[in-house]
Amino acid sequence: MAGSKFAYVKKFELPDALLPNMFMVFRLDGHSFHRFSDEHEFVKPNDVRALRLMDHAAKSVLEAYSDIGLAFGESDEYSFLLRKSTTLYNRRESKIVSTLTSLFTSNYVFHWPTYFPDVPLRYPPSFDGRIVLYPSQREVRDYFAWRQADTHINNLYNTVFWALVQQGGQTTTEAHATLRGTVSKDKHEILFSHFGMNYDKIDPRYRKGSVFVRIETPEAPEVTTEATSSQPSEGIPKKAKKGKVPTTLELLHCDLIRDDFWEKYAHLLD
Amino acid sequence: MAGSKFAYVKKFELPDALLPNMFMVFRLDGHSFHRFSDEHEFVKPNDVRALRLMDHAAKSVLEAYSDIGLAFGESDEYSFLLRKSTTLYNRRESKIVSTLTSLFTSNYVFHWPTYFPDVPLRYPPSFDGRIVLYPSQREVRDYFAWRQADTHINNLYNTVFWALVQQGGQTTTEAHATLRGTVSKDKHEILFSHFGMNYDKIDPRYRKGSVFVRIETPEAPEVTTEATSSQPSEGIPKKAKKGKVPTTLELLHCDLIRDDFWEKYAHLLD
Amino acid sequence: MAGSKFAYVKKFELPDALLPNMFMVFRLDGHSFHRFSDEHEFVKPNDVRALRLMDHAAKSVLEAYSDIGLAFGESDEYSFLLRKSTTLYNRRESKIVSTLTSLFTSNYVFHWPTYFPDVPLRYPPSFDGRIVLYPSQREVRDYFAWRQADTHINNLYNTVFWALVQQGGQTTTEAHATLRGTVSKDKHEILFSHFGMNYDKIDPRYRKGSVFVRIETPEAPEVTTEATSSQPSEGIPKKAKKGKVPTTLELLHCDLIRDDFWEKYAHLLD
Amino acid sequence: MAGSKFAYVKKFELPDALLPNMFMVFRLDGHSFHRFSDEHEFVKPNDVRALRLMDHAAKSVLEAYSDIGLAFGESDEYSFLLRKSTTLYNRRESKIVSTLTSLFTSNYVFHWPTYFPDVPLRYPPSFDGRIVLYPSQREVRDYFAWRQADTHINNLYNTVFWALVQQGGQTTTEAHATLRGTVSKDKHEILFSHFGMNYDKIDPRYRKGSVFVRIETPEAPEVTTEATSSQPSEGIPKKAKKGKVPTTLELLHCDLIRDDFWEKYAHLLD
Repeated sequence: MAGSKFAYVKKFELPDALLPNMFMVFRLDGHSFHRFSDEHEFVKPNDVRALRLMDHAAKSVLEAYSDIGLAFGESDEYSFLLRKSTTLYNRRESKIVSTLTSLFTSNYVFHWPTYFPDVPLRYPPSFDGRIVLYPSQREVRDYFAWRQADTHINNLYNTVFWALVQQGGQTTTEAHATLRGTVSKDKHEILFSHFGMNYDKIDPRYRKGSVFVRIETPEAPEVTTEATSSQPSEGIPKKAKKGKVPTTLELLHCDLIRDDFWEKYAHLLD
Repeated sequence: MAGSKFAYVKKFELPDALLPNMFMVFRLDGHSFHRFSDEHEFVKPNDVRALRLMDHAAKSVLEAYSDIGLAFGESDEYSFLLRKSTTLYNRRESKIVSTLTSLFTSNYVFHWPTYFPDVPLRYPPSFDGRIVLYPSQREVRDYFAWRQADTHINNLYNTVFWALVQQGGQTTTEAHATLRGTVSKDKHEILFSHFGMNYDKIDPRYRKGSVFVRIETPEAPEVTTEATSSQPSEGIPKKAKKGKVPTTLELLHCDLIRDDFWEKYAHLLD
Repeated sequence: MAGSKFAYVKKFELPDALLPNMFMVFRLDGHSFHRFSDEHEFVKPNDVRALRLMDHAAKSVLEAYSDIGLAFGESDEYSFLLRKSTTLYNRRESKIVSTLTSLFTSNYVFHWPTYFPDVPLRYPPSFDGRIVLYPSQREVRDYFAWRQADTHINNLYNTVFWALVQQGGQTTTEAHATLRGTVSKDKHEILFSHFGMNYDKIDPRYRKGSVFVRIETPEAPEVTTEATSSQPSEGIPKKAKKGKVPTTLELLHCDLIRDDFWEKYAHLLD
Repeated sequence: MAGSKFAYVKKFELPDALLPNMFMVFRLDGHSFHRFSDEHEFVKPNDVRALRLMDHAAKSVLEAYSDIGLAFGESDEYSFLLRKSTTLYNRRESKIVSTLTSLFTSNYVFHWPTYFPDVPLRYPPSFDGRIVLYPSQREVRDYFAWRQADTHINNLYNTVFWALVQQGGQTTTEAHATLRGTVSKDKHEILFSHFGMNYDKIDPRYRKGSVFVRIETPEAPEVTTEATSSQPSEGIPKKAKKGKVPTTLELLHCDLIRDDFWEKYAHLLD
């Protein structure tokens, strides 16, 4: 064969299979989204259009990969939990990381006009991704708790910050100065006394982020999720679909830190 | 801090920096593009719109990352050569693989309507990516020769195959049977005697693939490539741009196997 | 500094820390021990001197590294279980693998004359080692069960084989032929009917291998194991010894497959 | 098979082959040799017996592995260069690191009485090892230059330090204080003016370390190195010996920093 004398270069591709029987968390983050959100005039502190677009892109990934049972999103990041027994792409790290990041990105751009009908996409956004392995349920729970605690901290800060700027007339520099050294209670107090806002009444989407859970619905007529989506079944190993229990995806904005969620959806950590 | 008791989960992210001073080849491939090309009725054996879209997406990656000096594309795949001295993202493998795959994907979807004005994108396509390290110039040259030899083999086969089907009236099964056991010379002969086609006269884009080379243009007025593209400079480390010699990107469809190319563009292997 | 212009070569040493909170099993095997045992005329099927020397070398490793709670040896191999929380050498793989293999080897050669007083060591033996990570207790149990099942299979075969040769007058070729296709029950039967041996009465050291367990002995006077051994405490991080509960090491030849052992020594899987 | 239901644990052993066509440097270091040298009353600043024992152990490794062409030793460390084309143990990292460290250690203990006939080994010493990969000859040269520059710096310091203590009557604290802030020239001057020593006349073994080079000796009668050593050929892949040009090992104490050595022994970097 013409190419055979060059084919030795293929030997430099080393195997990169991830350890078996480990939980895989795949997390992606927007690349330079500070600028991207400025250029597209995202509403501050939260742009519900942008968050819904993130959710849509995430749902497309969940629809394409049945081994993902749980996902959590906030701001410009999303985390996906793959079953510890998954054999997706033989657990090859680069293959999984790149394909999932690509599919998410593709959906983000593809569905942009649905969520931003009046805002043309000015340039193509990108995301980066990584996989982190966890040996036990405890660490997986704590991972999601860590992300949601982060959501809380950031959202509380941003909510007060933008209230000070948008309603309080402060410059951004002044608003940062106002908030320097304040603790959580102080921020609640500023919101309430100055702006009449009860933080706990704010849309839970902003306070808690977005949680997708996969629920088995054995009694439902066998309509695979793919059939009702614009996403063809390409991402799903064919044999994996045989005899699969139909599942549906639920979008929640609930607490992931306390036990309730994990007790109710215990199967997610199988 | 509220999240601090969960932050230990971050320790499971192990460093994944790639060895210094190694050439990095980043290759991406279309995911299930057999189906994707069918669904979007790509012209056989080569759809110039699809190839130009691939080139556009690749060019956007080259514009965003000045440490990429060379790229080669064929069909639904593209390979990019990063300078061996690059410190892009501190050479972290997942970061580079995911970001570049994402940026390429994003551009592919974003620019789709430019190349397929009459064919709406039916669903979001995706790509997978990987990095392979090479220690020396010899292997890098052989890598690109390997890919171009592959282009040649595939394109010759596909050209005859679709001539047999589209002009010769064979079924696809018959065409495969006709070609079974034939060598290169036989295929040239079939093309010439049956269909009056001289394979060597076919558009070099199809026979040789697409080659992007970065050329330094020190005499040119300092207009960064980014300023003229729809891609903002977000992907480029700010400090890297200081004092940089302006460069331009050339698209070629030339031979990568013989010495000429590598002698002319010797700086690509620095 | 004189060497500073060369010091960049140090950057090629990439980090190789193993994932946190994973059980580590370190296994070593004799290198070309078939030949080594021939050259030193080991008794067949089991040479108790050689097995005791292996145990002694293993015990020295256990004494030097308090994060090893369990070890299992058979023939010319030994496996060691490190606590999942161990921070030994910052969990650097090469450091742990090489140091433990070296310490075992050193002890093997050092203590040879004690176990083979009449057989001079003809040449220095060597061992190879590796680390395997396991996420959960289940896999750790199954790992040790796997090794002990191997011990059983090999020892039963070897016991019959050498009975056929040494007592039955068969050549080794004949003995292999006799055993071809036999199952466990057949081998027991040959042993019993031809040679009057009840396999289950054979020394459990041969049938079960050697098991070291570390037991906490809080009531004992604080005499560290190191103080009574020829091995100084060099291998043990100094701070790790502060406030440590004194422990002792027990050598057993017991079953590792059923639950009893793991229930009795449940702390080994903490 | 009895063990088959446990054999799944073997899947947790991930492949660890090192990149092809890279130079491998294997370096080992004595573990806690400060204490070891104290306990065995090594002569300061250099104990020729200890250095010769290191050399002997290193030579045994070179004899066992014909893919090692060069080695450099100083104090309690030794570095070995493996051919970039080596397929030793399929380039598996743990296997190479552990086996070579083990073989060195074993020889060190085995040959101890030859070099320390009057000093019984009080406890078994150990070593740690690691492999570093280098893509080009330049880095390999600089690696060895780095180690030899280190030898020079350490030996010069130690030579003056111990002269101050042993001949000058200073305490070790005083000697460190005397040397604080001195540069190379100062140290030479102290040695010469206070103790009448010309540093450049000191045994090159101490100033330059030990260099083993493998020389092809095609004209010699085919006597493999193994046949004349106490080390059997176990470590050498059988097929590797077929048609091999006989080689000999030379021990030098020469400069590795300038070009002369590398020009004379250019084949070492093939």
